[in-house]
Amino acid sequence: MALVSIFETLESEVRSYCRGWPTVFDRAQGSHLHDEAGRTYLDFFSGAGSLNYGHNNPVLKRALLDYIEHDGITHGLDMATTAKRAFLECFQDVVLRPRDLSYKVMFPGPTGTNAVEAALKLARKVKGRESVVSFTNAFHGMSLGSLAVTGNAFKRAGAGIPLVHGTPMPFDNYLDGQVPDFLWFERLLEDQGSGLNRPAAVIVETVQGEGGINVARPEWLRALRDLCDRQDMLLIVDDIQMGCGRTGAFFSFEEAGITPDIVTLSKSISGYGLPMSLCLFRPELDIWEPGEHNGTFRGNSPAFVTATAALNTYWVDSRLMEKQTLARGEQVEQALLSIVKGLGHRGVSYRGRGLVWGMEFDDKTRAGRICARAFELGLLLETSGAQGEVVKLLPPLVIPPDDLQEGLGILDRAVGDTG
Amino acid sequence: MALVSIFETLESEVRSYCRGWPTVFDRAQGSHLHDEAGRTYLDFFSGAGSLNYGHNNPVLKRALLDYIEHDGITHGLDMATTAKRAFLECFQDVVLRPRDLSYKVMFPGPTGTNAVEAALKLARKVKGRESVVSFTNAFHGMSLGSLAVTGNAFKRAGAGIPLVHGTPMPFDNYLDGQVPDFLWFERLLEDQGSGLNRPAAVIVETVQGEGGINVARPEWLRALRDLCDRQDMLLIVDDIQMGCGRTGAFFSFEEAGITPDIVTLSKSISGYGLPMSLCLFRPELDIWEPGEHNGTFRGNSPAFVTATAALNTYWVDSRLMEKQTLARGEQVEQALLSIVKGLGHRGVSYRGRGLVWGMEFDDKTRAGRICARAFELGLLLETSGAQGEVVKLLPPLVIPPDDLQEGLGILDRAVGDTG
Amino acid sequence: MALVSIFETLESEVRSYCRGWPTVFDRAQGSHLHDEAGRTYLDFFSGAGSLNYGHNNPVLKRALLDYIEHDGITHGLDMATTAKRAFLECFQDVVLRPRDLSYKVMFPGPTGTNAVEAALKLARKVKGRESVVSFTNAFHGMSLGSLAVTGNAFKRAGAGIPLVHGTPMPFDNYLDGQVPDFLWFERLLEDQGSGLNRPAAVIVETVQGEGGINVARPEWLRALRDLCDRQDMLLIVDDIQMGCGRTGAFFSFEEAGITPDIVTLSKSISGYGLPMSLCLFRPELDIWEPGEHNGTFRGNSPAFVTATAALNTYWVDSRLMEKQTLARGEQVEQALLSIVKGLGHRGVSYRGRGLVWGMEFDDKTRAGRICARAFELGLLLETSGAQGEVVKLLPPLVIPPDDLQEGLGILDRAVGDTG
Amino acid sequence: MALVSIFETLESEVRSYCRGWPTVFDRAQGSHLHDEAGRTYLDFFSGAGSLNYGHNNPVLKRALLDYIEHDGITHGLDMATTAKRAFLECFQDVVLRPRDLSYKVMFPGPTGTNAVEAALKLARKVKGRESVVSFTNAFHGMSLGSLAVTGNAFKRAGAGIPLVHGTPMPFDNYLDGQVPDFLWFERLLEDQGSGLNRPAAVIVETVQGEGGINVARPEWLRALRDLCDRQDMLLIVDDIQMGCGRTGAFFSFEEAGITPDIVTLSKSISGYGLPMSLCLFRPELDIWEPGEHNGTFRGNSPAFVTATAALNTYWVDSRLMEKQTLARGEQVEQALLSIVKGLGHRGVSYRGRGLVWGMEFDDKTRAGRICARAFELGLLLETSGAQGEVVKLLPPLVIPPDDLQEGLGILDRAVGDTG
Repeated sequence: MALVSIFETLESEVRSYCRGWPTVFDRAQGSHLHDEAGRTYLDFFSGAGSLNYGHNNPVLKRALLDYIEHDGITHGLDMATTAKRAFLECFQDVVLRPRDLSYKVMFPGPTGTNAVEAALKLARKVKGRESVVSFTNAFHGMSLGSLAVTGNAFKRAGAGIPLVHGTPMPFDNYLDGQVPDFLWFERLLEDQGSGLNRPAAVIVETVQGEGGINVARPEWLRALRDLCDRQDMLLIVDDIQMGCGRTGAFFSFEEAGITPDIVTLSKSISGYGLPMSLCLFRPELDIWEPGEHNGTFRGNSPAFVTATAALNTYWVDSRLMEKQTLARGEQVEQALLSIVKGLGHRGVSYRGRGLVWGMEFDDKTRAGRICARAFELGLLLETSGAQGEVVKLLPPLVIPPDDLQEGLGILDRAVGDTG
Repeated sequence: MALVSIFETLESEVRSYCRGWPTVFDRAQGSHLHDEAGRTYLDFFSGAGSLNYGHNNPVLKRALLDYIEHDGITHGLDMATTAKRAFLECFQDVVLRPRDLSYKVMFPGPTGTNAVEAALKLARKVKGRESVVSFTNAFHGMSLGSLAVTGNAFKRAGAGIPLVHGTPMPFDNYLDGQVPDFLWFERLLEDQGSGLNRPAAVIVETVQGEGGINVARPEWLRALRDLCDRQDMLLIVDDIQMGCGRTGAFFSFEEAGITPDIVTLSKSISGYGLPMSLCLFRPELDIWEPGEHNGTFRGNSPAFVTATAALNTYWVDSRLMEKQTLARGEQVEQALLSIVKGLGHRGVSYRGRGLVWGMEFDDKTRAGRICARAFELGLLLETSGAQGEVVKLLPPLVIPPDDLQEGLGILDRAVGDTG
Repeated sequence: MALVSIFETLESEVRSYCRGWPTVFDRAQGSHLHDEAGRTYLDFFSGAGSLNYGHNNPVLKRALLDYIEHDGITHGLDMATTAKRAFLECFQDVVLRPRDLSYKVMFPGPTGTNAVEAALKLARKVKGRESVVSFTNAFHGMSLGSLAVTGNAFKRAGAGIPLVHGTPMPFDNYLDGQVPDFLWFERLLEDQGSGLNRPAAVIVETVQGEGGINVARPEWLRALRDLCDRQDMLLIVDDIQMGCGRTGAFFSFEEAGITPDIVTLSKSISGYGLPMSLCLFRPELDIWEPGEHNGTFRGNSPAFVTATAALNTYWVDSRLMEKQTLARGEQVEQALLSIVKGLGHRGVSYRGRGLVWGMEFDDKTRAGRICARAFELGLLLETSGAQGEVVKLLPPLVIPPDDLQEGLGILDRAVGDTG
Repeated sequence: MALVSIFETLESEVRSYCRGWPTVFDRAQGSHLHDEAGRTYLDFFSGAGSLNYGHNNPVLKRALLDYIEHDGITHGLDMATTAKRAFLECFQDVVLRPRDLSYKVMFPGPTGTNAVEAALKLARKVKGRESVVSFTNAFHGMSLGSLAVTGNAFKRAGAGIPLVHGTPMPFDNYLDGQVPDFLWFERLLEDQGSGLNRPAAVIVETVQGEGGINVARPEWLRALRDLCDRQDMLLIVDDIQMGCGRTGAFFSFEEAGITPDIVTLSKSISGYGLPMSLCLFRPELDIWEPGEHNGTFRGNSPAFVTATAALNTYWVDSRLMEKQTLARGEQVEQALLSIVKGLGHRGVSYRGRGLVWGMEFDDKTRAGRICARAFELGLLLETSGAQGEVVKLLPPLVIPPDDLQEGLGILDRAVGDTG
């Protein structure tokens, strides 16, 4: 295809999404992307969870344009700026205080993996131990610290060095209910002869997005919180993909009623798809020395501006936002149930929470074929899971019900076309 | 100070620059920042090298506003987009072809450390070896892979785990000319009994910015290139701070006439201070599997737009840009010479290349005091070096000569005031 | 105590057994040790399993004296010697051939930990992977390679570096039958997203001696062998303490009918308590380069001489030896049952196989008190388990029934005295 | 060759010395070995330094036979025994007190590598740091801890995992006098930005035996001792091969007048070639917990008996022993000088100290050919160095001058025959 030639000739073979969606995108708005040939695509992917408020959300866009037009600080490192102050005040008023959370806020480099690296460093520094427990099918990032607690064997192999200091434990329902929760993990911790290096921390996603849309039950998360307390381990919730309302509440762990020791946020925190990330932690843990962890783009101020606008627009009344997301989630669930019924419940299952859903097929190749067919039909859908065996639904939180229904209809058709 | 209170109460103790520059910045243009009290500061720091074309450069700003206004794709992952295509074509035409470089282009996560992580992964994968050689006082980033090849003991301690798989070698002139270049390094490589794990690669900065403005001579870089060839090691030039014209030519290694196997770029590549980074490598090394290294914000399209505008504006005629930078560099050098003369050449020295310069004082505390005094006098200056013993000058490349002279005058005065 | 003063003043605090048995031993024969004050002790410890044929066994002693008197090679490195040839021929005829085992024989350094280090190296070299799976409460040695697959937290902490490249899995019955065998382990192996580094090998003891006399069932060992086959992992049986007849058959894995890929032997292989160890492996695995693993004392020829004598004396008719050991084992079991009955089966349990048995008390301090009391009563007994909560019975295989009964009587009394 | 067939069929390919010396040895006495065909070989190898007092030394043999005949404890773990007490008292009286050394004595497993593992563990535990500095061409053993500080690339590759936590520094004269001693090492230590992980300890051989007979000058060792003091690092002298009089004095570091913090001894400490090793350290460092490092054969009592006899026989008058060794050394030096003269000083050099000498040839293959020819002529000689480029002379310390002269004559002829 002549149109994409420079991507093929100049860009590295590492490129990935462009292979499944072979077109050149140009513009986007709300739930839709437009390619340069004028074709429109409905987006059930949302920048891998970075566009919860849709593409180029008009309210955020206005704030961004104003800021740029008036020559606001663009690159602020960790200087004090009016943009950062506005964000901090808003984050405190809109997010932390109403939830009675007293977290300190750290701005690591503006990517998710940098927030995870900061969280792991801090946990190790606080506890004076190297080891961190992660869960099966976890995904935390591509830099070496984060990759060591990521499950995917293909990604891990890319490290080029043996990844150590991490130990995987079974995620909720990993062993299909055959084993009491945390039986193995706690036994290892209690036994002075188990051979497990005592962990500084446990890092967990409440819903594993990349790992196959695996949903942890609230009671499992509560039991994990208790285990961490009993065994003197810090609990890190990586809320990079599931935070910012993806599961309903602002933080995905709110439903379980737990308070993690450390939380990472990124993806939709800026609201506009701009690079930004946060690492939150209990004030007692804030033993960082000034400059001990730094990064050139940690003060990406345009992102602070859209982040502030997003919080003020959508989260001042959190209940409204949460209610809407759950309603949209029910709409998705109904559609998935209908598709699965249509297949006679054979060789397929679905699961999800809020507005993140997955359909898994016994035929491991089918999810990929469904996504390919959906693209042809004008819908962006991605697979998930270690072998790409799950179709992942991640529409914008603000998607209108009609658009959502349209996309679910395309999914239904794509499932049918790949039977 | 009431103005900065939320930074003190809510932001982590890890914050750093805001401590040396105790004010709240609001706007910026060209070589100047303005705080909210209306005070103006001349910028000899340039976002740690991310603002080579000044703050909110009007040409780039126009392109950025247009792109946002027209709802261009903001968050593009590694999809093919018109913004990325424009950047790739421009980068090929303006940067690679004229220099006869055939690099493939990889977009890792948009921060420097992510580019370094990608470079190290690729080198290890290509060579099937774990070890990487770095140099004394190197700085490559804060995520675990990059930190392992960074020299600063304070930053390294933040890792919370022993940093391994890296070995430091002496940077140019590290041993004050007492030892032939690479004598020790090559002897270790040639000796089957040396105990050095054979390195996959060597990673080097041509001028160490964070490490104290240490300038490698062209002949040293050429000898390093030869050594890598003879000993089957890949040469990675980390051009994150020194690339994009900081030393004169677009790439800092051009002066030496060498071609690295892998190059990392970030900081000023977007031109506007927006997060973006690149990893360039010889086509034969492009053995990545699709998606083997990924990241949410690697398609930060607004940065592609300003990057394209910056290349088209400043680098179509590279010689002009280079000539101007070298002229400004001479202006700095004259001023530093004059200051040093004024001190009777006692307890002080200076060094630099292009528009990156450093003054080192025998009194290790003086550089910090000079920067503090400069701030009072309206000039942003930072220290560098393992103990902050060097005053670092990193003005925008596009700074007008009068502004430059004004800043050098303030520096002179700050030196005098701290004697 | 004046008698032991130089041990207290000159020997390191690391000394251990001499603290529990505060006397100075002088001579020994068969099942008895004599201290310099003329007191005799019955030995239920057997040099931690190194003296299966008793102290200074007269047949072996004669062979040893002859060898020394005739100036046989003492220190042979890995030269070909008549003593080594005699041992190899005997080992082939008496041990390997009758069991249809085609192992190659490697002489690492003469200690158990050196055999384990060799086994781990070879497994990693063969499979090209770093990771090795061990089991909860495993004990494999004190050098860094072996320690990394040892469970005891106290011993591990002595390493002074984080121990990596090993992952613990649950030993048989570790989770009290609540979980199907190998459910967790195999799920991790099959799942490309589990985060488990694919192991080169699994290392296991059939009965964990130091770990608390934990006995693996034959069916569990067979399932482990199958798992290794299915998942392309080498199976290493560390038979250092349980081999040489301790459990009945010469190799402890014979009962299960499995053939490990690699076997380590030490402790009782020389028969006389002299340092010696072997690493056995399938011929296809013998990819060692000459001299790739070496050691100064690997040709400790006096040990070869006593080893040959021991095999010729006790193992030419294996069934006889095995039958006798099992009979003695039953004698022990009866006595333990009687003791436990006497305690009303409350707060105590016992387990064992062949002539290795353990009694565990709910009161974790009692085992230590029992051993202390037994010493006073003239019986050498040691504790086992991560917290020393198990009384370990390891009498010589050749102990006369009366001596055995006498020792069991002392144990009974010591149990009673510590109630 | 039919005679060695079982070695070829049953013993692992890892066997090494038997390849260079293709015969089957049977008996040995003093400086001579005898093969089973009745041929006699003069020994310039001494069990790699384990037989300083010759094979089956009659005084030691008598003591050993007596001990065995009288049923002395053979296997003593770390129990208090009369044999150990006698050794400790003797070691204190004959070795430590006369040298004003106040070391505590630890008995690790009876091999050299186990002593090194113990030394490294203790140093890391004391200093709370992981890193250890070793020297180019160092040899410290084959278990993972020791191998990580060993230089030989071939041996290191056998580990099957990346060897980390060690950094090599240049041994004395490694860079042919072009660089001031310790310039690089100390600069790295002083520079907070060097990237060197601060070492817990430095481990060094005063003469590198396996590494090519590299002799450290006394002033270099003293400077190293000073450096360790200044930089808060422990100094470990691995005196396994060079201790017990090999260089003249009992400890090889005596000549330099330094006192290491930790010393490892093995090889000739038992005097008879029996497995034994010691780890000595300053009393303040004795922070071991009881049993924190253990091992089955650490109480190899027959070795204690011969060790005691050896010390009493040879070291009560240390000056006599030292004088004799130095005289024999001069005899060797004269012969080597003569050989080198005969070659016109072309392509050959020699070096040594006490009774350890090496000849190096520019033609890297010649040393191997000389050793092969020497074997044919009835002399056992081994190569040394990373590529086997050095002929190593390691005759028994007690070799009669005539035997020594005979061997040197054979060497001369072998050199001539391989020209």
